Amino acid sequence: MSRLYDRVALIGLGLIAGSMALAMKRGGLAGEIVGHARSAETMKVAMERGLCDRVCDTPEEAVADADLVVLAVPVGAMSEIAARIGPHLKPDATVTDVGSVKRAVIDAVAPHIPEGVVFIPGHPLAGTEQSGPSSGFAELFRNRFALLIDEGVPPEPLDRLAQLWKGMGAQVDVMDADHHDLVLAVTSHSPHLIAYTMVGVADDLSRVTDGEVIKYSAAGFRDFTRIAASDPTMWRDVFLNNREATLEILGRFTEELFALQRAIRTGDGDMLHDYFTRTRAIRRGIVEAGQDTGAPDFGRGQ
Amino acid sequence: MSRLYDRVALIGLGLIAGSMALAMKRGGLAGEIVGHARSAETMKVAMERGLCDRVCDTPEEAVADADLVVLAVPVGAMSEIAARIGPHLKPDATVTDVGSVKRAVIDAVAPHIPEGVVFIPGHPLAGTEQSGPSSGFAELFRNRFALLIDEGVPPEPLDRLAQLWKGMGAQVDVMDADHHDLVLAVTSHSPHLIAYTMVGVADDLSRVTDGEVIKYSAAGFRDFTRIAASDPTMWRDVFLNNREATLEILGRFTEELFALQRAIRTGDGDMLHDYFTRTRAIRRGIVEAGQDTGAPDFGRGQ
Repeated sequence: MSRLYDRVALIGLGLIAGSMALAMKRGGLAGEIVGHARSAETMKVAMERGLCDRVCDTPEEAVADADLVVLAVPVGAMSEIAARIGPHLKPDATVTDVGSVKRAVIDAVAPHIPEGVVFIPGHPLAGTEQSGPSSGFAELFRNRFALLIDEGVPPEPLDRLAQLWKGMGAQVDVMDADHHDLVLAVTSHSPHLIAYTMVGVADDLSRVTDGEVIKYSAAGFRDFTRIAASDPTMWRDVFLNNREATLEILGRFTEELFALQRAIRTGDGDMLHDYFTRTRAIRRGIVEAGQDTGAPDFGRGQ
Repeated sequence: MSRLYDRVALIGLGLIAGSMALAMKRGGLAGEIVGHARSAETMKVAMERGLCDRVCDTPEEAVADADLVVLAVPVGAMSEIAARIGPHLKPDATVTDVGSVKRAVIDAVAPHIPEGVVFIPGHPLAGTEQSGPSSGFAELFRNRFALLIDEGVPPEPLDRLAQLWKGMGAQVDVMDADHHDLVLAVTSHSPHLIAYTMVGVADDLSRVTDGEVIKYSAAGFRDFTRIAASDPTMWRDVFLNNREATLEILGRFTEELFALQRAIRTGDGDMLHDYFTRTRAIRRGIVEAGQDTGAPDFGRGQ
């Protein structure tokens, strides 16, 4: 790959920014990578791991002369960061973000973007339950989707940013912000809230000890605990900022759950069997689409 | 390991029975392994894979002279099988099962167990989302728990069956049937119903296509689809036969989910953050207990 940006500024140095830094360096996609994080310790670790060529104590300094600025902070922190960096952005720079919700980020960031600077919201559908400057790795985006939001941006900067994501191993799709927020409410935000809830219920149940929950977790619960180990601050902000879509999907989920509970209560085995047969097909589609392996998940139990 | 049973009869030749056969052969734990399955095709595959030394067309023939009989059929089929094999069991044989619920299996099987035969209900907390005679593997039980139910059985047969499970790589815990059913409602049955429900909701939502759900599944939904790909017949029977405990846990789950939805609606970020922080601790416990790896799940996204 050839260099796409002479200077990239990463604001926030967690899992996503750290993985982007390593993937950009591997691909020779960026000239200089400048970083800023709120905590000095995070910046120290980022330098030790070679994520950045240099770090700056303030976001204002970090974005100076940057051709691409990546906002990789929790969604709730986007507005303040945007307000601070706005006046310091290089003319004709591109600003993007990696937040998990898009409409709220646009509302928070766009007002602070000066004339001549292009803002292209983005969201790589990749990550792990781990967080922090030590958690990133260059392979994180391989074969994952990076979603870019086009609400009327010039083609050249959009194409360049798409090339960057492809250079980091991702596939790129472009959609509008509201559809993104609905799709993610289904594929990510609601499942996460549900997993957090189920783990919380288990923890509350005094007749079943945490010890038992932990020992016997291979029985299916384990995947929920993995999801429910994700970064609390990030997820708080996701739910507060994708409120309507998440609550709508959770409403449908509850309706559906009640229908299945009723089938259990009334002993309607045919309804349950038909339902479980239908959901199996979606799994096959995901394996065929290469978004997961068909290999059995060793150790899930009944 | 030394031989524990001269002849073992496997009734049902799916994932669990197939894995037991391979693990018993590897460990030299059984003299002869005799199998029966309802379908001739399943028995053919079982012989081709070397799961059994021989297969029998009827369960009555299969259990003749068997020292250990393993009922590895869906919970809903236990009663009929038990009624058929009861009169043909060898005096002082041991009968066990691998069903995911225990009280209902005891009610279905115990009445058909003749004087002198010992029935020890069991449940290995291991498996995958795959099923059938081709899906088993000898390593399935390694480091997993096998739960045995002791409602007043003689120590020698209980100890021998525990030795068998340990010889197949499992850790053994003994508990009573009702506690088992409650624990599994929390760690397995409710999470499975919830995963089935969420996948069904996604499939129903016309504004989000299945194509999008599949493409963007790395965002967390993927784990739900894996759980929701499990065998429909087995799971129908689980829910119909662990009705009370599952409905109780689902009731608590719904309460808790409503509380979190309310926090989202009212913007109570502190409540959400505290909740998500608490659930993270359980995950750490599971990793420390060796029931899952601490390695990040490559590709889960935000």
